[in-house]
Amino acid sequence: MIKPLGDRVVLEPVENEEKTASGLILPETSKEKPQEGRVVAVGSGHLEDGKRVPLEVTEGQRVIFSKFAVTDVKYDGRDYLILRESDILAIVE
Amino acid sequence: MIKPLGDRVVLEPVENEEKTASGLILPETSKEKPQEGRVVAVGSGHLEDGKRVPLEVTEGQRVIFSKFAVTDVKYDGRDYLILRESDILAIVE
Amino acid sequence: MIKPLGDRVVLEPVENEEKTASGLILPETSKEKPQEGRVVAVGSGHLEDGKRVPLEVTEGQRVIFSKFAVTDVKYDGRDYLILRESDILAIVE
Amino acid sequence: MIKPLGDRVVLEPVENEEKTASGLILPETSKEKPQEGRVVAVGSGHLEDGKRVPLEVTEGQRVIFSKFAVTDVKYDGRDYLILRESDILAIVE
Amino acid sequence: MIKPLGDRVVLEPVENEEKTASGLILPETSKEKPQEGRVVAVGSGHLEDGKRVPLEVTEGQRVIFSKFAVTDVKYDGRDYLILRESDILAIVE
Amino acid sequence: MIKPLGDRVVLEPVENEEKTASGLILPETSKEKPQEGRVVAVGSGHLEDGKRVPLEVTEGQRVIFSKFAVTDVKYDGRDYLILRESDILAIVE
Amino acid sequence: MIKPLGDRVVLEPVENEEKTASGLILPETSKEKPQEGRVVAVGSGHLEDGKRVPLEVTEGQRVIFSKFAVTDVKYDGRDYLILRESDILAIVE
Repeated sequence: MIKPLGDRVVLEPVENEEKTASGLILPETSKEKPQEGRVVAVGSGHLEDGKRVPLEVTEGQRVIFSKFAVTDVKYDGRDYLILRESDILAIVE
Repeated sequence: MIKPLGDRVVLEPVENEEKTASGLILPETSKEKPQEGRVVAVGSGHLEDGKRVPLEVTEGQRVIFSKFAVTDVKYDGRDYLILRESDILAIVE
Repeated sequence: MIKPLGDRVVLEPVENEEKTASGLILPETSKEKPQEGRVVAVGSGHLEDGKRVPLEVTEGQRVIFSKFAVTDVKYDGRDYLILRESDILAIVE
Repeated sequence: MIKPLGDRVVLEPVENEEKTASGLILPETSKEKPQEGRVVAVGSGHLEDGKRVPLEVTEGQRVIFSKFAVTDVKYDGRDYLILRESDILAIVE
Repeated sequence: MIKPLGDRVVLEPVENEEKTASGLILPETSKEKPQEGRVVAVGSGHLEDGKRVPLEVTEGQRVIFSKFAVTDVKYDGRDYLILRESDILAIVE
Repeated sequence: MIKPLGDRVVLEPVENEEKTASGLILPETSKEKPQEGRVVAVGSGHLEDGKRVPLEVTEGQRVIFSKFAVTDVKYDGRDYLILRESDILAIVE
Repeated sequence: MIKPLGDRVVLEPVENEEKTASGLILPETSKEKPQEGRVVAVGSGHLEDGKRVPLEVTEGQRVIFSKFAVTDVKYDGRDYLILRESDILAIVE
């Protein structure tokens, strides 16, 4: 298992077929180039004045994120992405 | 539904016809290139010292925003914009 | 009406005739290129540690501001300017 | 009257004759290019954690300042300078 | 022994054979170029408002880290890496 | 008299003869180019969360400082230097 | 004696012979170019919210540091280095 640190989140990328089902289309030309993923694991929280503030996203949620500053990791044959919660723009419900 | 995170806001762009009605005209030549939109969803608030401070804007309001750092998203055939509240300049009432 | 957010202020530009009356002349060559305006609306305040600190300027005051980072907006046929209070240098009384 | 905002100060420039009297000479070659002025008005203070901390300088004092980030203003036929207190280096007593 | 300061961590690099066993593969083409290591020693914690907040990682854990800002050190014939905890992306369990 | 503001300090430069006596030699080739001076006046302190924290250096001490960001001032025929305490590296006792 | 200010530390460089004895070798090719030194004097501490937080290192300890932002000082015929504690990576015990 990959357990992210602090305000980081592990995502698995959402495939195109699934995207069509949800109705979400992310244009190629968008400046920030958002992408969609599913939350696999969340870190212990933001460090604020010495306390941990829990993240807003939780396991299983589908999220839109900016693909800058994302790290690609391959584990047990699967692709994952690690990013900070602040690079997640929104939850798709 | 698209639920923005933290201090982010989801807008739908306001069409030109509607703009004329409100009397607001945003000049092409303006340096910050403001645009107009309607608030569709707001995030949980600004994270300040470990607490969430609610956003000022609320659903349904019409706002002027700077179009830098805005992410375009297409969902169920509609165009939306995701941005931070700090990139919203004013509410048009 | 245009209601600015947070620490932002809406100004209407002050015309030249009026400037002469007040005795204020802003030189072309000044590095920061200050301009004069009248406060039309003020935001809810600076967000400091989760609390709103009211702005110093109030409606009706005449102010000198740095014209960088100002956004021009046209509303109901009139020109307005939106800027942060920190870009206002002084009140002219 | 010009009333500066926040941590800003209004100065009137000190003339050369007066400089000789005080014994202060500011070399042309100095990297920060300090200049001398007299305090005409002071702002409401530094905004620190939502409170105003009064400025150290007071009306009538003569000060040395760094001429970067100074805004020149002409009012009622006189030249003034507006700058932040943090750009004032010292008081000359 | 090498005792890291503050929010720093000492790692020993994890060899390729071991990587295959865990199933983790870090692609060459990944933008942040993550690498894997084992925690050998941790610092006294993050300095936050004058207090030490303990690190999240502990000795013996295997971690993925961004290889930027890592310092290579050779001690008693072995290779070690020193980095800040914030450059560790996740723990591999 | 020159009274520095806030966390600033006024120094008089220490001459070469005096340097030899103290045994301190500052190499020409040092990257930060340290210099030696004697404290003539100290400011009211660092502004921290709205309170003044007194400076560490006091009048009469000899100090080593980095010569970047130092302002040269000539007063009553003497040369002085104004700098922030954070640009002082150490006290020479 | 050289007494460092605040979060600064004075080191004397550790010679090569001594390095071999401890078993520490710092590679030439390392990006941050770490070096080894012995702590000669420590400052009064980090200034955090108006309070001094003592440094972690103490006199006599051997430390690895990044050689950027180090100032070389010669005193009584000996070479010393002045740096901030945050540029010390680890203590070698």
